[in-house]
Amino acid sequence: MERLLTNNKYSGEDNKHYEGAYTQGNGYLNLRATFEEDLSGATQNDLYWRLPANVTLEKARHPKSKWGLYVPGVYGVHPILGEEIVNLPYGIGINLYSGGERLDMEESDYGDFSRSLNLSNGLLTRALVWRSPEGDIAVTFRRYCSLQHKHTIVQEVELCSASNAELEFESFMDAGVTTNGYSHITDRCGAYRDGLELYASTDSEQRIGMASRCFGGALGEARFEPMDVNGRIRETFRVGLKAGETVAIRKYVWVATSADEDYRGGIEEHLAAVVRASAPDEADFSVHEKLWKDKWNRSDIVIQGNEQLQNSLRFSIYHLLRSANESDKVAIDAKGYAGEAYFGHYFWDTEIYLLPFYIYTQPEYAKKLIAYRYRTLQGARENARRYGYAGARYPWESCVTGTEQCSNWQYADLEIHVTADVVYGLAHYCEATGDREFLLGPGLEMMVETARYWVSRIDRIDGEYRLMGVMGPDEYLPYTHDNAFTNYMVKFSLRKTLETLELVKTAGEPDCTAPLGVTAEERTMFAEIANQLAFGEDAERKFVAQCAGFEDFLDVDFDVVWTDRSKPFGQFISQERNYRSKALKQADVVALLYLFRDRFDEETKRNCLAYYEPITTHDSSLSYIFHSLLYNEIDDRDKAYAFLEKSLELDLGRKGAAEGIHIANSGGIWQAVVLGMGGFRGLADSDLLDVKPRLPDSIRALEYNVCVRGKWHRVAATHEGVQVKELIEERGRKD
Amino acid sequence: MERLLTNNKYSGEDNKHYEGAYTQGNGYLNLRATFEEDLSGATQNDLYWRLPANVTLEKARHPKSKWGLYVPGVYGVHPILGEEIVNLPYGIGINLYSGGERLDMEESDYGDFSRSLNLSNGLLTRALVWRSPEGDIAVTFRRYCSLQHKHTIVQEVELCSASNAELEFESFMDAGVTTNGYSHITDRCGAYRDGLELYASTDSEQRIGMASRCFGGALGEARFEPMDVNGRIRETFRVGLKAGETVAIRKYVWVATSADEDYRGGIEEHLAAVVRASAPDEADFSVHEKLWKDKWNRSDIVIQGNEQLQNSLRFSIYHLLRSANESDKVAIDAKGYAGEAYFGHYFWDTEIYLLPFYIYTQPEYAKKLIAYRYRTLQGARENARRYGYAGARYPWESCVTGTEQCSNWQYADLEIHVTADVVYGLAHYCEATGDREFLLGPGLEMMVETARYWVSRIDRIDGEYRLMGVMGPDEYLPYTHDNAFTNYMVKFSLRKTLETLELVKTAGEPDCTAPLGVTAEERTMFAEIANQLAFGEDAERKFVAQCAGFEDFLDVDFDVVWTDRSKPFGQFISQERNYRSKALKQADVVALLYLFRDRFDEETKRNCLAYYEPITTHDSSLSYIFHSLLYNEIDDRDKAYAFLEKSLELDLGRKGAAEGIHIANSGGIWQAVVLGMGGFRGLADSDLLDVKPRLPDSIRALEYNVCVRGKWHRVAATHEGVQVKELIEERGRKD
Repeated sequence: MERLLTNNKYSGEDNKHYEGAYTQGNGYLNLRATFEEDLSGATQNDLYWRLPANVTLEKARHPKSKWGLYVPGVYGVHPILGEEIVNLPYGIGINLYSGGERLDMEESDYGDFSRSLNLSNGLLTRALVWRSPEGDIAVTFRRYCSLQHKHTIVQEVELCSASNAELEFESFMDAGVTTNGYSHITDRCGAYRDGLELYASTDSEQRIGMASRCFGGALGEARFEPMDVNGRIRETFRVGLKAGETVAIRKYVWVATSADEDYRGGIEEHLAAVVRASAPDEADFSVHEKLWKDKWNRSDIVIQGNEQLQNSLRFSIYHLLRSANESDKVAIDAKGYAGEAYFGHYFWDTEIYLLPFYIYTQPEYAKKLIAYRYRTLQGARENARRYGYAGARYPWESCVTGTEQCSNWQYADLEIHVTADVVYGLAHYCEATGDREFLLGPGLEMMVETARYWVSRIDRIDGEYRLMGVMGPDEYLPYTHDNAFTNYMVKFSLRKTLETLELVKTAGEPDCTAPLGVTAEERTMFAEIANQLAFGEDAERKFVAQCAGFEDFLDVDFDVVWTDRSKPFGQFISQERNYRSKALKQADVVALLYLFRDRFDEETKRNCLAYYEPITTHDSSLSYIFHSLLYNEIDDRDKAYAFLEKSLELDLGRKGAAEGIHIANSGGIWQAVVLGMGGFRGLADSDLLDVKPRLPDSIRALEYNVCVRGKWHRVAATHEGVQVKELIEERGRKD
Repeated sequence: MERLLTNNKYSGEDNKHYEGAYTQGNGYLNLRATFEEDLSGATQNDLYWRLPANVTLEKARHPKSKWGLYVPGVYGVHPILGEEIVNLPYGIGINLYSGGERLDMEESDYGDFSRSLNLSNGLLTRALVWRSPEGDIAVTFRRYCSLQHKHTIVQEVELCSASNAELEFESFMDAGVTTNGYSHITDRCGAYRDGLELYASTDSEQRIGMASRCFGGALGEARFEPMDVNGRIRETFRVGLKAGETVAIRKYVWVATSADEDYRGGIEEHLAAVVRASAPDEADFSVHEKLWKDKWNRSDIVIQGNEQLQNSLRFSIYHLLRSANESDKVAIDAKGYAGEAYFGHYFWDTEIYLLPFYIYTQPEYAKKLIAYRYRTLQGARENARRYGYAGARYPWESCVTGTEQCSNWQYADLEIHVTADVVYGLAHYCEATGDREFLLGPGLEMMVETARYWVSRIDRIDGEYRLMGVMGPDEYLPYTHDNAFTNYMVKFSLRKTLETLELVKTAGEPDCTAPLGVTAEERTMFAEIANQLAFGEDAERKFVAQCAGFEDFLDVDFDVVWTDRSKPFGQFISQERNYRSKALKQADVVALLYLFRDRFDEETKRNCLAYYEPITTHDSSLSYIFHSLLYNEIDDRDKAYAFLEKSLELDLGRKGAAEGIHIANSGGIWQAVVLGMGGFRGLADSDLLDVKPRLPDSIRALEYNVCVRGKWHRVAATHEGVQVKELIEERGRKD
């Protein structure tokens, strides 16, 4: 199984697309596919103010290249943007010099350029022939982030010169790196002990240590240079090349931080331990490959008759596998740790878009995502208190503490559906994995605390329970009352809370509710709000209104306003006008009807799609997938497939991925294939393993695995029928 | 007439109050009453990020002292806050040294401290006895901003030593000054030519030049020091003091900028011309005093039987006189140029709070304020275009260009009533002054262009004209529909536009409408919206609802939430909760009912006050005055006076004025006295000179002037009756 993404031409125009799309990761660190060497005109230490503007419409900096090495859990404190992921010092730097010229993709003369990412094993390769002052030199860079030794990045440079040549090989690490234009590094220093060492502190008082060693028979003696004013340290070697001979040089980079679960003592000691535990070994790569293979064995999907979909799908699965963390101190950020556009923050994406993939194919990682929310429950409580409410209120943008990190008040204050979404995800996870221990312990605590928040947040107006002043998933209406999505989610989360409280009782297990102190009055309130909270369903018209008074918002004539559909609608209208118009940023009722697909009838789904789809701009990358899924629900396979195709373009299109992977969309693509056309209904809101594929014409057959309550099933679907086979080898244990 | 404000104790705790309250100005420059000498622990070049937070609730920096020298029209460009007034280099610096010790209000030993501001002539005096290493030295600082030579600040230091002493007298200018934590100075240099010269450029590419000269027989030879790294230049003199002899040293400071109307050539040449035109002359002060007297003669109010009100009122009038600019390139900023808290921006304050004082007592300055809006009409057009509308849309926060400068979208985008307020002010000015030329020329253009904006901004929903998604004067409801204040203002402004168009026709004057291209269809639309725009008046209940659905907002129990009424309510509730509660920041319907006092009957006023006053927090300084004025309307003199008293405290209370003068409140105080208790009804919305005083018990008699259509009237009111006397000497011309 050789699955390669390949590109044969470097251009400053689209280089960042490849940097993002080819990002590597191993559950500890993530590394953008930037070049080892410096690139002219692509400084990495620019300072500027990234303001809390509308990220969707913002123009990104760094046109050609943006280094990115991220260890989730290492964060800084930005005065405007809050807790923010830190772009770590660039440890993998390698510059090559020949006759005074530095190899540079912008300036050098070279040919036969190619770069590729092997999705099967995360190996990144770049090859080119450098027309150097000393003649043609074939250069190949390879690197991978070891799955075996997760603190380690292994690099190789292969050199073959047409004539005798003497190169200079410079290995560097650079702490002069900014994150979104801000330097979170408060101090830094270099050292030399058989190789480079770099230590840095962040403004959150975390410590970072990095070490590197270069190996290779051709290397001369190392010449170390202490840290320069820009924060760079380097060691330089002479490399003698004989005509026609191939020479390989390896560089190992180790990354350790004080945020590591096993951090002890000082950073130097910790780094030394990390280096000792993962000493270079030629056999590493095969172990690494084997570990990748195991991941793929669980999560791969095989499609027949549609190579494009097959490849795009594997691209998404690769990033879902690559970005899942071993630690549950963190979740998966909106850019899949392939860029810093969303500051390393976690959104509702986690539960609604990402979780299903992990629940059904990597349940241990699903548990980490749920556990992350439990770890930040204290922050959510603090959050509720700050806003003036009881219980726990999950933040719209979450980072390490669980307090609100979103710097735009309209999202931070109003997009409160996330708190109910967390419970939706929790319930889904527990139902599908059968993790009763989590449900009745931490899960129930989360449910009860969020339920208490809802009780204090919801108003009773003229005898009716209402949820006033909220923003739904459609962020183009900033301030609405009784958003249908939010209210229904709240009802669901309160019902689940009551069911779980009941479960504790019937199970006769030690009564977990007592420590939570849930009173009879509270249960009554939970039930009353679950039943009576306003919900804008028109049973007669078979229609759900997005919010109270939705009809009063302004109709927009897209043909007049949106003159170039290749750009977001939001660029063609002022925020003020957009905010009072019926143009939707993304699926709102459409998402609701899919997420609770068993509770709404087909006519309602049809009516709502017919009404909302034409006024939806899909300015958010979160929109297509729910359209695909809901069209699938009403068996409109062409439309379902058309929306899936659009979502495939988001990162694979040449404009995509530059600032990171739309990882929620990746999770959504998996859902559209498995839960959509693949017909696996999931267990978010039902308890049946019920598979009804709806393959589009362009697909001959589809095979995928799902793990339900610890049992693995292989589903093989064709246009003729479906086969569900329980896998005897229980992969969840064995692998 | 000697009207002194006096303080006899320096304390770092309240020093900034005096700096703001004793601010001087002359229509060209404004100078906070900061000390001449450096103050320990009060650095002036701090760099920090002032974020677009809620200014009302923000904690100010610079706890002890903030230099402030402002020439309105000199502005910088702040990356977050937009066009911003620039705190100019500090030209008036004087340090005194004795035996190696520097005189310092924080560190030195001194006694008999006093400082005072003479409201009659703007003279600031500070006296103290310095227990210097050389013995007691009586030191008196005096300074004024010349009304005769407006580019000139005149300073004097009087020294009298108990024993022979030799002081060092250091005159300095300092360009290392930041504005709201930001340095708008891009380059700076010093020079020496008979005195100090300092040149600087701003990031808006304006140029600033300053010169100073020191005079006095006691001065030894000057020793000049070139600019240091912090941007300071200085010249030092030895001063020999003989025991018991009084020595006076004068320092003249000239300020010139490329924003001056008469700027020609380079800044050096311009500064030289300014210095030449205002060479030091001992007679200056009497001319200056005479000019101040003329201002007071028009604007003073004499109150009998209430000294506190008399003094407070004169404090307000002083600042209104001091902050009015000679140039119509600028208006009067929210802090009366006595601080930079609101970045030097102009709000609806201009038309609604400030304009009446000027219209009726300083009509030339009223015209400048109106002319400022005309000068920024092009910016307002650009603004409308950016938002996607026709015509002209005045910005919520205006500065030099007229485009929106507010960095919080909810105000910038939604507080659109300002566009109608501008027309209200324009109509008021034209009606009261009879300035038909302005009305039919620039005024009509402003009216028509804003009317066009309204036509494109207003929606027709189910056959009804509605104004959706706005913020009214009450900024604690961020996003409402059909705010009564806004809608009524819009109706008024459209009616005025139609009336003025009609006036052009009936006057038989050259048809000004032709160049504006007003079509018959436009007139029809103006009329239709003026008549039919939604307005939430309940004729039966005699009540006006603040906005559509106001009743659905949450009731707040102030006793529970607002536990310390000495602090703003907004500090006790999260913005989110506040935004969906019925707590009002400030007068909204109450302001409307006063501004259109002849259109609403007394019962409506009573009902609305009874309903809205208890839920109004008065977190904005703009609130009290309209409560005072509307209570006066329903003849509740006690309440009217109580609210007036609260407004007097805003700047005169020890917590006030530190970041500048609440100049809108100053204008409001004048209104509460003249238009409120004084009974002059003004001509904003009627055409009668109709005086019906309603003096509270605590006032025996009241005398004031008003100028109506070029004729000056003196009103003398007592509890027994009122006398209105037309002044034969027409002051508007003669003075």
